Amino acid sequence: MRWVRYALNGTAGYGILDDNDRVTPVSGDPFSGYDKQAQRLSLEDVQLEVPVIPPTFYCVGLNYTKHIGDQGLKIPNKPDVGYRANNALIAHGQDVRMPADSLRVHYEGELVVIIGKKVRNIDVDDVKKCILGYSMGNDVSERNWQASDRTFWRAKNSDTFKPMGPWITPEIDISSMRTTVSVNGLVTTQFDTADMLFGIEEFVSTMSRYLTLYPGDILWMGTDGVSPDLQHGDVVDVSLTGLGTLRNRFIKEKAI
Amino acid sequence: MRWVRYALNGTAGYGILDDNDRVTPVSGDPFSGYDKQAQRLSLEDVQLEVPVIPPTFYCVGLNYTKHIGDQGLKIPNKPDVGYRANNALIAHGQDVRMPADSLRVHYEGELVVIIGKKVRNIDVDDVKKCILGYSMGNDVSERNWQASDRTFWRAKNSDTFKPMGPWITPEIDISSMRTTVSVNGLVTTQFDTADMLFGIEEFVSTMSRYLTLYPGDILWMGTDGVSPDLQHGDVVDVSLTGLGTLRNRFIKEKAI
Repeated sequence: MRWVRYALNGTAGYGILDDNDRVTPVSGDPFSGYDKQAQRLSLEDVQLEVPVIPPTFYCVGLNYTKHIGDQGLKIPNKPDVGYRANNALIAHGQDVRMPADSLRVHYEGELVVIIGKKVRNIDVDDVKKCILGYSMGNDVSERNWQASDRTFWRAKNSDTFKPMGPWITPEIDISSMRTTVSVNGLVTTQFDTADMLFGIEEFVSTMSRYLTLYPGDILWMGTDGVSPDLQHGDVVDVSLTGLGTLRNRFIKEKAI
Repeated sequence: MRWVRYALNGTAGYGILDDNDRVTPVSGDPFSGYDKQAQRLSLEDVQLEVPVIPPTFYCVGLNYTKHIGDQGLKIPNKPDVGYRANNALIAHGQDVRMPADSLRVHYEGELVVIIGKKVRNIDVDDVKKCILGYSMGNDVSERNWQASDRTFWRAKNSDTFKPMGPWITPEIDISSMRTTVSVNGLVTTQFDTADMLFGIEEFVSTMSRYLTLYPGDILWMGTDGVSPDLQHGDVVDVSLTGLGTLRNRFIKEKAI
C-alpha cells in the first residue's frame, strides 16, 4: 500500500493506493488516525497533491561525494541539516516555472523521508519507528543565484522549485535502491541511494538531540551527480527503486 | 486593538485585546475572517500562545550595520532573506531551554512582520496592504554552533530558541520606534528600528518577485547590537515602542 494525497471536487484528502492503482479514500490522515471509506476511486480520476505540507521542511545539502566535489565544496564531517520553504512545493504532474531572469536551472533528485510521530532524543536504532514513509523530491536550483545570493531564498525556494511525490511508500530497502533522473526520457543521472555520507538514522537521531520532530515534517536526503541546464519544455523524471516516478515539466516564464 | 492567540481549557484561539487588557474571543481567525463572541476574558486569565504558526518562517539575517560589523561580515548589497524553523517557536512567558552543551547563548531582539494576505509581485507602495500587523521576536543564537556548523540548524533553531509575541499590533510608526533589550531588568541593547539597511517594504516586494507570501507567513527583520553570554536564570525582555514586552527566562538544561 501507498499513501496518496489528492484533490477531488475542490477538497484535498488522503487515500490508500493499492497495487491496482485504485484509491480508497480515508477520513482523517495517516498521522493522527484514519478510517477507510467505502468508496473506490481510480488513480487517473484524482488530482495528486503534494503528499504532505510539512510543519518544518528539512533538507540535507551535501550528502553525496560527487555532488560536493562538483560544487568545489568540502565534504562535511557531521550531519548539519538545512531548510527549504513550503511556498515552493508542487505535486507530481505540476509545472516548474523557471523565472524569466533565471539562467542555469538544475534538477536534484532526492529521497524524501516523512516523519510520522513526534520525537525528541531518539536513538539511531529507533529512528525507523518514527518514520511514516518515503517519497521523492526534486530540489530544483538556480545555480547563478545559489552562487551570488547570501542565502538560498530564490535559488532553491522560488515558487514551484520543490516538486514532491507522487505518493508515500511505507517501506523501502535503502541498500538496493537507485536514483535515476531523466530529461525528456533520456537518463542523465544515476546513483546508488546507499552512497549517502550520513544516513537517515544518523540525521534524524542527531537532529532530535536539539529539536522536536513533528508528524508531517519532511527530510530531503540530498543528491548526487550533475544536471544539464534545463530548457523550456523539458520534462524531468525522478525515479527511485520502489517509489515510482515524480514527473514535472519545466516552463520558462516570460518577463512581465 | 491588538490580536492575541491564547489557550484556555486546552484549546487555542484568537482574541482581540483592548486597551484595558480585556480579551474578546473570536470564532475564526484574523486571516480568513472572524466573528466576535459575547464573552470577555481578562488577559491574566488566559495563557498566551505564539501569535501565529507560520506556513513559512522568514528571517532577515543581517540588517543593521553594527551587528554585521560585530560578526566580521560584509554589509549585504541586496535583501536576501533567510529562514527559521517552527519547532523553535515559543510564546511570551515560556522558558528558553539552553541545551546542556551550549556555551555562548545570545539574544537578538527583532521586529516581526505578520503577513495577512496572499500576495505575489507586490509593489513597494502596496506592501502595507498585505500586512496584518507586527510583533516581536527573540532570535536566540548559540554563537559557537553558528561558527562551527555548516548551517544554523541548532545554532538558531534548537527547540525554544524562537520566542515570539506577546501579541500582534496592526499599526506602527517605524520612524519613531526603538528596540530595547534588557537582562534581569538592566538595559543591555538599544537601537532605532528605523536603522534597518533594507526596510519591510523592500524585503516583501523583492521576495514577492520570486515567491508567494501566504496569510500567517512571518518575517523577522534582524537585530543590532551585542548580547552578553546568557546565564541560567536570566530573564530577557525585548521591547519595541508600541508593541509591548516579550519576556522569557533562560534555563540551562542538565546533561542527560
